[in-house]
Amino acid sequence: MQKKKPSKNSQAKWVYRFADGKADGGADLRNLLGGKGANLAEMTNIGFPVPPGFTITTEVCAAYYGNDRKLPDGLQGQIHDSIEDIGEAVGAQFGNVSNPLLVSVRSGARVSMPGMMDTVLNLGLNNETVLGLAKRSNDERFAYDSYRRFIQMYSDVVLGMDHGVFEDILDAHKNLNGFSSDMELDAMDWKLIVDKFLELVEVELDEPFPQDSNMQLLGAVEAVFGSWNTARAVTYRRLHDIPDEWGTAVNVQAMVFGNLGDNSATGVAFTRDPSTGENVIYGEFLVNAQGEDVVSGIRTPLSLTEKARNSGGDTKPSLESLMPKVFADLSDIFNKLEAHYLDMQDVEFTIQGGKLWMLQTRSGKRTTKAALRIAVDMVDEGLIDRETAICRIDPKGLDQLLHPTIDPTAKIKIIAKGLPASPGAATGEVVFSAEDAESLKLAGKAVILVRTETSPEDIHGMHAAEGILTSRGGMTSHAAVVARGMGRPCISGASSINIDYKAQEMTAAGKTYSRGDVITIDGSTGNVMAGSVPMRPPELSEYYVKLMSWADEVRRMGVRTNAETPSDVRHALEHGAEGIGLCRTEHMFFSGDRILKVNEMILSEDEAGRRAALDVLLPMQRGDFKEIFEIMSGLPVTIRLLDPPLHEFLPREDKDIEKLAKAINVSFDKVSQRIDALKEFNPMLGHRGCRLAISYPEIIEMQVRAIIEGAIEAAHHSKAPVMPEIMVPLVAYVEEYTLVKEVIDQVAKQVFSEQDTELEYTVGTMIELPRAVLRAFEIAQVADFFSFGTNDLTQTALGLSRDDAGKFLTHYEAKGIISVDPFSSLDQDGVGELVAMGTERGRAARAGLKVGICGEHGGDPASIAFFNTCGLDYVSCSPFRVPIARLSAAQAACETRFTNDTL
Amino acid sequence: MQKKKPSKNSQAKWVYRFADGKADGGADLRNLLGGKGANLAEMTNIGFPVPPGFTITTEVCAAYYGNDRKLPDGLQGQIHDSIEDIGEAVGAQFGNVSNPLLVSVRSGARVSMPGMMDTVLNLGLNNETVLGLAKRSNDERFAYDSYRRFIQMYSDVVLGMDHGVFEDILDAHKNLNGFSSDMELDAMDWKLIVDKFLELVEVELDEPFPQDSNMQLLGAVEAVFGSWNTARAVTYRRLHDIPDEWGTAVNVQAMVFGNLGDNSATGVAFTRDPSTGENVIYGEFLVNAQGEDVVSGIRTPLSLTEKARNSGGDTKPSLESLMPKVFADLSDIFNKLEAHYLDMQDVEFTIQGGKLWMLQTRSGKRTTKAALRIAVDMVDEGLIDRETAICRIDPKGLDQLLHPTIDPTAKIKIIAKGLPASPGAATGEVVFSAEDAESLKLAGKAVILVRTETSPEDIHGMHAAEGILTSRGGMTSHAAVVARGMGRPCISGASSINIDYKAQEMTAAGKTYSRGDVITIDGSTGNVMAGSVPMRPPELSEYYVKLMSWADEVRRMGVRTNAETPSDVRHALEHGAEGIGLCRTEHMFFSGDRILKVNEMILSEDEAGRRAALDVLLPMQRGDFKEIFEIMSGLPVTIRLLDPPLHEFLPREDKDIEKLAKAINVSFDKVSQRIDALKEFNPMLGHRGCRLAISYPEIIEMQVRAIIEGAIEAAHHSKAPVMPEIMVPLVAYVEEYTLVKEVIDQVAKQVFSEQDTELEYTVGTMIELPRAVLRAFEIAQVADFFSFGTNDLTQTALGLSRDDAGKFLTHYEAKGIISVDPFSSLDQDGVGELVAMGTERGRAARAGLKVGICGEHGGDPASIAFFNTCGLDYVSCSPFRVPIARLSAAQAACETRFTNDTL
Repeated sequence: MQKKKPSKNSQAKWVYRFADGKADGGADLRNLLGGKGANLAEMTNIGFPVPPGFTITTEVCAAYYGNDRKLPDGLQGQIHDSIEDIGEAVGAQFGNVSNPLLVSVRSGARVSMPGMMDTVLNLGLNNETVLGLAKRSNDERFAYDSYRRFIQMYSDVVLGMDHGVFEDILDAHKNLNGFSSDMELDAMDWKLIVDKFLELVEVELDEPFPQDSNMQLLGAVEAVFGSWNTARAVTYRRLHDIPDEWGTAVNVQAMVFGNLGDNSATGVAFTRDPSTGENVIYGEFLVNAQGEDVVSGIRTPLSLTEKARNSGGDTKPSLESLMPKVFADLSDIFNKLEAHYLDMQDVEFTIQGGKLWMLQTRSGKRTTKAALRIAVDMVDEGLIDRETAICRIDPKGLDQLLHPTIDPTAKIKIIAKGLPASPGAATGEVVFSAEDAESLKLAGKAVILVRTETSPEDIHGMHAAEGILTSRGGMTSHAAVVARGMGRPCISGASSINIDYKAQEMTAAGKTYSRGDVITIDGSTGNVMAGSVPMRPPELSEYYVKLMSWADEVRRMGVRTNAETPSDVRHALEHGAEGIGLCRTEHMFFSGDRILKVNEMILSEDEAGRRAALDVLLPMQRGDFKEIFEIMSGLPVTIRLLDPPLHEFLPREDKDIEKLAKAINVSFDKVSQRIDALKEFNPMLGHRGCRLAISYPEIIEMQVRAIIEGAIEAAHHSKAPVMPEIMVPLVAYVEEYTLVKEVIDQVAKQVFSEQDTELEYTVGTMIELPRAVLRAFEIAQVADFFSFGTNDLTQTALGLSRDDAGKFLTHYEAKGIISVDPFSSLDQDGVGELVAMGTERGRAARAGLKVGICGEHGGDPASIAFFNTCGLDYVSCSPFRVPIARLSAAQAACETRFTNDTL
Repeated sequence: MQKKKPSKNSQAKWVYRFADGKADGGADLRNLLGGKGANLAEMTNIGFPVPPGFTITTEVCAAYYGNDRKLPDGLQGQIHDSIEDIGEAVGAQFGNVSNPLLVSVRSGARVSMPGMMDTVLNLGLNNETVLGLAKRSNDERFAYDSYRRFIQMYSDVVLGMDHGVFEDILDAHKNLNGFSSDMELDAMDWKLIVDKFLELVEVELDEPFPQDSNMQLLGAVEAVFGSWNTARAVTYRRLHDIPDEWGTAVNVQAMVFGNLGDNSATGVAFTRDPSTGENVIYGEFLVNAQGEDVVSGIRTPLSLTEKARNSGGDTKPSLESLMPKVFADLSDIFNKLEAHYLDMQDVEFTIQGGKLWMLQTRSGKRTTKAALRIAVDMVDEGLIDRETAICRIDPKGLDQLLHPTIDPTAKIKIIAKGLPASPGAATGEVVFSAEDAESLKLAGKAVILVRTETSPEDIHGMHAAEGILTSRGGMTSHAAVVARGMGRPCISGASSINIDYKAQEMTAAGKTYSRGDVITIDGSTGNVMAGSVPMRPPELSEYYVKLMSWADEVRRMGVRTNAETPSDVRHALEHGAEGIGLCRTEHMFFSGDRILKVNEMILSEDEAGRRAALDVLLPMQRGDFKEIFEIMSGLPVTIRLLDPPLHEFLPREDKDIEKLAKAINVSFDKVSQRIDALKEFNPMLGHRGCRLAISYPEIIEMQVRAIIEGAIEAAHHSKAPVMPEIMVPLVAYVEEYTLVKEVIDQVAKQVFSEQDTELEYTVGTMIELPRAVLRAFEIAQVADFFSFGTNDLTQTALGLSRDDAGKFLTHYEAKGIISVDPFSSLDQDGVGELVAMGTERGRAARAGLKVGICGEHGGDPASIAFFNTCGLDYVSCSPFRVPIARLSAAQAACETRFTNDTL
């Protein structure tokens, strides 16, 4: 075709065509054509039945925004030529009254953004071509139904009208005629509706609905580009770290119709089960329907396969039984797609008059559970290698697997049942709006977001919620897709639930649940339960175990955990922790009635009083350490000396102060005064960390004695060697470290001499203040190891209190100053340079210095990749995040960390 | 002499001799011989009458501490040889019963440490040599008096006994015999006292007082070395930044006696007046006395010159009239000393039987007022050049000149009169101990430290006090010397005051003043006044003006001020400020009843409410700026946009909240709630600086409008150009800066268009967060200037809250972790590297970028020298410190900044 009608604008190729097994582009042009466009081209080249069409490139989007929202010169001509080509390919003509070509116009960014971008179908219809369509399809009802859909969609997406007003007209007409479903309307009804729709548009916009097909098309193209910058698209990009400048492409494609009668259908499918990863076709379809009917959840779709139909208990036939030939073609295509793309595919297809058309293919979103199975299976099937498999898994998604599930022995009260749309169980207070979800979450509440269906406007609320419950929609509805992506448990289509937004309540199983009432959902079974329900820790699949073992083989960095309670330590070990990177001794101070002794120590007026209280605490802490050393059985344990300011241990409320005063036999006033005296303006920058050790060496003397004695006892009882690493917090001056280390060595020496034994131990320091980074070369000369405390390093480098920043960081994200909370993911440009600098300066002074990191960032994939680049020896994170860290470290070692691009 | 008896230890020269116009060393060996030893050698070489002696070097001190407090091998032999030489030079012999050589043993560090190191006189006396001394001096009373002094001093300093117990024996003897003064005791009395002293020593120490002169000497030498590490010496070094490793030398010198009758005397003198700088001999002497009698303040000394006697109203004769020949010798020596040392000298001398002996010379401590006059005079006299003169002045001392003086028109109630020991006036609560002075100072109180006399143990209290008052002692007493050095107003010898430490009160002019009562002292007149008294700003002398004009010619860096009130701005201009480096707009928010509108703005629930309140504030701020621009008349004015967190403006007490609630017509509860909601855990790291501008752009819109409109008005009214520099605080991300700058430029543009005029202005940023330093290369691309906020940069780099650090930084200083509070003097190793890095990175992106500093450190001499090295363009400091900054910047340019070494 290109040869016949070359583009009139040779200077810039804005448009890439695909038709009849031949395309200008291919999968390699994803950045230019967007994911959808590249795949359409690719599928065309492979020889799949793809409706002919063309893609307007992402460069046009950039040009559009670069040129004050005007389409670039030359584009119109190229579109014109291309649409003529489509017409030729399908034997119709754009705007032709008797044989009109209809097209779909869809967005298509580099990365799939489900539900984010607007789509227009049936474009090309007007008051005259609708007659031609009626005649050619021999179905007047279909033609007017299509026209009214087009008007409705176009008016909404391109002309900016509220789509509700069209629904109102339709509802009014149905009420007037006593119709309960769209199916009851005939051609005349739709014709009437079309007239009313056109009238409405003209009244609202003061000009008639555009009748010129070319104008319709240009309007739709601009609308797609415009939708790139709607608030909801911007939010999605922010949440998924997608750069604004990527832009979207526009795909214009000949319409095929799944609603041309009973031998027509439309459906969506995954080449494997996106929920479990099982290698079975998974999907839904609707006879005599258009694609939007499936996705919107208005009608409940049918199963593709007999097997799924049987297990789902559907009464209606599957595609496999209804259209066996088409189903066989589809299966065949699925196999070829996987062989070609080497990944599970998410496809849209339409059957028009018995002929199968492939509308779209893309890597399918999947649960992490499914991702693991698919990756491992594909390695077993010889499709991909292990490193590819490792990089196929979103480390953050492993969170899903670690979610608790409903305890099977629990007595539960099921109040409704829906589709198991995203696995995991969650308990929370019912809320009915995204705003409520977000504000209650900020107030520290766990919430379940309950909606009839969700829309992109709800994404921030879904993010804030523990789980999502909808009364409508299928497994591929917006709620289901987005929740799976987020790793949130989700039940969709729980149709027995009635939601009353105005009253802020829902009824289920005859009972009313108001905003704030607690329910539990199980996204793996679809059960909605009243109240909160006992849960069980998740079991990890064989696929998980296999893939993680591959990851462990690949990664360079060690993974430790931040833990101090025996249960946390065991939990972390189960998840593969290779040591403790941060044991916060102060957490032990809170357990049981120790806090009383701790308070007595803090409130003592002199060293003697403090020592007396510390003597009581010593055997308790010794016992704690002994237990941890025994559990860790030879793995390294880094113990941080007391860090928080002393006032954090003291009571705040008068009644608690009174209790304490009585318990330690001191007057209320005296206790209050001492508490007041200890208060600080900026505790984060106050009397804490090694500063306490400098002022009250007796505290760390007790702690070090407890560590060394505990280690000796543990080594005595177990056969494994015990290797304590004692860590000094908040060092700014090497002199601080040296003074504290002297105390440590002195106490250790004394214990060794008392017990006539010796034990290896090392002493190192946190690097968590900018000054420590700058003086790392000095500190490394006397410290055995460094551990970056990136929480405090972030607070100090950015001058940002983690406890206070929540209030305004949202403004920062909204205004694009930051793309991600620097406490969640390392600020690589700033804090990152400090980590690199500290490591470099430290190792310059002491070759091979062991350097780790034990801030929150130790569990964040992007940060872990950065730490790998810095040459850190290990990361340490919360027990829950150990698997994430193991996988992220492996991906970092592969140098192809998981990104949204990967799928 | 050396030739006759070469040292037996050729391998190490531990001892340097001086005698008869010839010395082993000289002034150039100050580091080895200490200041005193080097000067004794130098004076000997010049030919002054110096009692012969030798110096044990500072290396011996190092060897002593390096060798577990043992004197090095070979030292004893060298001492032995040297003491024989002394004996030969004076015709006596150490330990010889009939003709005993007596020596003094004195410390002498590289830097003068007055009162810090212990001294032993009359060493060599024992039960037998005392007889020889009596015979040779023909004065038995003198001999036993000397012996009892020696026992008392030696027992205190070398044997570690409490000197009070000796005083008790003496007092008991005097009471028993009805004596009121030492003069009444005759030879037999002293003999009896000596016996009792010897008995006491033997009882207390279980062994007799050492009778072997050589053992006495070695003991004294060790005691001098030991005294290098007493707590008070360590404290002094810490306060004066003197390294511990310097060590002290020991000077052993033949005794000469000022107490050998009425043609003997002892005195101290300055070659010029150390208080005014006038080129007149200044000093005191006592007939028939030893040096300690003058310094201790027990007897009130006489004037050296007739002129001083007359002006002081003394009834007793001056040295000039009493011993004209000796006085003429002394005057001649003073002239030669100044010509030799090119500086004013502080000398100690003794007249023994009419013969003058020079015991010591050193650069004399002086008031800053005197230092200025001496430096300027010496330039005029051709002794030194201007740069030397500039570097002779301790910039910190300029504080003294800027101290207020008593308003001469004020009605004052003088309750006592003492010596004008250190200039300046001060008001404060009376305290009677150094500890109280320190703790009340920490509690924010101004205090006057009142003591009978002060001792080195009181130094920390003198530091904490606004002024010092003693009831005893002369102009060269400990209190006077130390107070002058510190720049604290001081009155000494106010003998009419009676101090009762136990009752914590003093009586003066018949009235009792308790701890906490307020008094005022005038260190320039010696007047002690009741209550607080109106004061006047100081007038600066012609010498000051001249020297500062030389400084201004020499310095490279500009000096600006941190000021925002018209009076402060004028004050700073008078002191030579060349611009405003930091105008804190928020200070203006507090004036008058504006704070109400500010609170209304803060408590508004929406932007509209905030804007309404801001509209009221606009004309007020505009007026402020206009006034400042007019006062500054063309000099640059850097205005910082709102910086502190909003809660700092809100009331805290319930009654104030109630008042506010009423005033803005909102319920108490609502106001309380809003105040609570604004509270922060770490305000220093909270919602402040440009973060406010991001959240509430309307606030800075108002501020920028006020600045630009004020500037236009000022430019209109005055002829001078107006050049506002708008400064964005607390930038961490370049994106923050860019957003705020957009708002600034937009408002400016709008004002220009409204008023149809234009005005130049620049926009820059504070660099006060480590991240801003790291990203300086980015920020400099869009910022016209940088200003380092070293207060916040110190807080963040060190993770140290200025408001909370006071509590534990004292521990840090005590333990030697830091030598100086990093908020007073820049932490050059840490924060300093950030300043250098930020400057370098900023200028790499924008050549010639204007960089200043506006933290507290802008007024600290050591920090200013560092900033000069970094290439900063200017420093900005409080108005009071502008002269200090000007002088420091000049010294930095001379590259010979004032240090303790200079004097």
